[in-house]
Amino acid sequence: MARPIVALLTDFGTRDHYAGTMKGVVLGLAPDASLVDITHDVPPHDVLTASLELAASYKYFPPGTIFLVVVDPGVGSARRGLVAEVGDYRFVAPDNGVLTAVFHDHKPKRVVELTERRYARPTVSKTFEGRDRFAPAAAWLARGTEPTAMGRPVTTWQTIDLPEPQVESSQIRGEVVLVDRFGNLVSNIDRRTFDQFRHEGAVRIAVDGHSVERLVATYAEAPAGSVCALFGSSEHLELAVNGGSAAEVLHLGRGAAVRIDRG
Amino acid sequence: MARPIVALLTDFGTRDHYAGTMKGVVLGLAPDASLVDITHDVPPHDVLTASLELAASYKYFPPGTIFLVVVDPGVGSARRGLVAEVGDYRFVAPDNGVLTAVFHDHKPKRVVELTERRYARPTVSKTFEGRDRFAPAAAWLARGTEPTAMGRPVTTWQTIDLPEPQVESSQIRGEVVLVDRFGNLVSNIDRRTFDQFRHEGAVRIAVDGHSVERLVATYAEAPAGSVCALFGSSEHLELAVNGGSAAEVLHLGRGAAVRIDRG
Amino acid sequence: MARPIVALLTDFGTRDHYAGTMKGVVLGLAPDASLVDITHDVPPHDVLTASLELAASYKYFPPGTIFLVVVDPGVGSARRGLVAEVGDYRFVAPDNGVLTAVFHDHKPKRVVELTERRYARPTVSKTFEGRDRFAPAAAWLARGTEPTAMGRPVTTWQTIDLPEPQVESSQIRGEVVLVDRFGNLVSNIDRRTFDQFRHEGAVRIAVDGHSVERLVATYAEAPAGSVCALFGSSEHLELAVNGGSAAEVLHLGRGAAVRIDRG
Repeated sequence: MARPIVALLTDFGTRDHYAGTMKGVVLGLAPDASLVDITHDVPPHDVLTASLELAASYKYFPPGTIFLVVVDPGVGSARRGLVAEVGDYRFVAPDNGVLTAVFHDHKPKRVVELTERRYARPTVSKTFEGRDRFAPAAAWLARGTEPTAMGRPVTTWQTIDLPEPQVESSQIRGEVVLVDRFGNLVSNIDRRTFDQFRHEGAVRIAVDGHSVERLVATYAEAPAGSVCALFGSSEHLELAVNGGSAAEVLHLGRGAAVRIDRG
Repeated sequence: MARPIVALLTDFGTRDHYAGTMKGVVLGLAPDASLVDITHDVPPHDVLTASLELAASYKYFPPGTIFLVVVDPGVGSARRGLVAEVGDYRFVAPDNGVLTAVFHDHKPKRVVELTERRYARPTVSKTFEGRDRFAPAAAWLARGTEPTAMGRPVTTWQTIDLPEPQVESSQIRGEVVLVDRFGNLVSNIDRRTFDQFRHEGAVRIAVDGHSVERLVATYAEAPAGSVCALFGSSEHLELAVNGGSAAEVLHLGRGAAVRIDRG
Repeated sequence: MARPIVALLTDFGTRDHYAGTMKGVVLGLAPDASLVDITHDVPPHDVLTASLELAASYKYFPPGTIFLVVVDPGVGSARRGLVAEVGDYRFVAPDNGVLTAVFHDHKPKRVVELTERRYARPTVSKTFEGRDRFAPAAAWLARGTEPTAMGRPVTTWQTIDLPEPQVESSQIRGEVVLVDRFGNLVSNIDRRTFDQFRHEGAVRIAVDGHSVERLVATYAEAPAGSVCALFGSSEHLELAVNGGSAAEVLHLGRGAAVRIDRG
């Protein structure tokens, strides 16, 4: 049988021991687990970014993968811990909306509140539930424990507002929601929304008032150094610079307005 | 049988190939090893930070874990290489005091100097003993080699001064020893020392002369943006800001004075 | 049988999900693969740095290791994807010269162009072939697929200019090609070239016109804070500061001139 995969997404960074310590806890309970980092560099407490990064990546993992998601500004408070089943995947996370974008993709089959203390460490720190509650829960899932053994099913949970594009008859009003390492400005306008709006007619694309001349299929199609638009790997419209950083060239970041107009 | 775990803690960063190269060496000798990064982002040559991060994390790994610790400003010099057995854990490290905080927790059962050349690579670089001496030693341990086969037991080793809090009748004088990714200012005042001093009486907490109003159980109990004190996941007093960075708000870092007064 | 090793070297960084997503794809096809990060922090699109880091590290991995190398400014364009066999290693990479330094070490036994679509994901993004083409190819190799099944052998490929030192009768003219995390300035002058030039006579070393007083065997041999020269772990001459950063002390970086003169 294949080793269970536990994929981690946190805001713990890699400078401190926190992510490594969680892995030690997982391996203590599930020695055969295969641990994969999605990222630990979500900006501190940035639940929205975590949610979007998770939604962009989870479906490329094999069925059965367990996602251990710890971006948890409410650590130690009364906010709940959850296990969610979505398709063939399971997610362990605080109940703070970090799973919103995944649930937006696919309705969860079941969501369970983590209440059974035997699946946590004997002492649970009020500042590091990732170590003492969420990592053990993921490890028990990896060992084959059913989510329903770990607590009671719930039917409501926290959600966050995902920035959705506003589609009007003559315009799509979107915004930049992620800036990646290359300085690509990734918007919330997905390809389907764009294609339905365009109907094969001509459109004009602008970011923060700057007109974008080219809609291309990939970076290399644009002249070096020029700003272009394209659909990136998550099928969302992004602004990019071939061989450079659109964020630096345009001095723009998250929240910048992206407009699609007919024309 | 469970795969042996080799957990790495270095100051090699993740930008260069150094940490990856060490892993290649480990897997060449111990193909079944499960490799876990604690961190590679210890500040360059910062033996104290490495020692504290290691002490905060090692006990959360399963028994049998081998720690490969390479923060080594004296690489290539006459300083020795060590294997230490502490409880059910083993540590491979240069003899420069990096294990001091672990040994402070638990007296080592045995410390061996790495002298047997057969457990190193045939050629040992004078600038990268992590690759040529320490990684192979960790791998041989993972294969089941006994530490005593790798050299002679020693009874003395280098130590570093761990900043200990000064406890007086009317005051604890501590300091910030770590600043984590969230900007939490972690002091050297542990919960037991604090509790013994307090005797359930009232105390006042100050950092660098700034009075800290609240002692809370977790971040979320403090008003957003306000500075609070709490015991973090390693049971040391830390200064924090709910939803922010205490380091930024207070403009403080390592070495800042932390005072507990009766009051 | 030992688990196949897939070692990753990319410029994807660790902030975004890209590297993690590639790992998910590999594990979906090759669940037993052991994944090792060499680095993901190659400067964006920096094919030369990637090539040098790869050449410095690959030979420390065990025979059979598969290297998944994705630094790919031409993603989505007509540039080809390659599998190369070098000694007992295999490399999956875009055909943009990133393997030049490895091939400079060892002539490849065989190079195959990745043309068989069945070894890619059904839909290949034009902006993330790492996920959709290169990761699957590496995974299929890990499963035992022969490179020749994945496309047709080719006899030419892209190369990049590796900065080679110029050796004249009275001088070696080299340059800094890498700056590591410690601020060491690594040049392109290897030990053999240096030794042949020196013939045991005296030489003078200078970087950007600054005379370097000491040639040492390791950092700790130089007085603290002073600039020294030594042969680092890849057997290339580097400028270093014991306990500090040569890059900071000298305000120098890649491209700085390194001169060896008789005298």
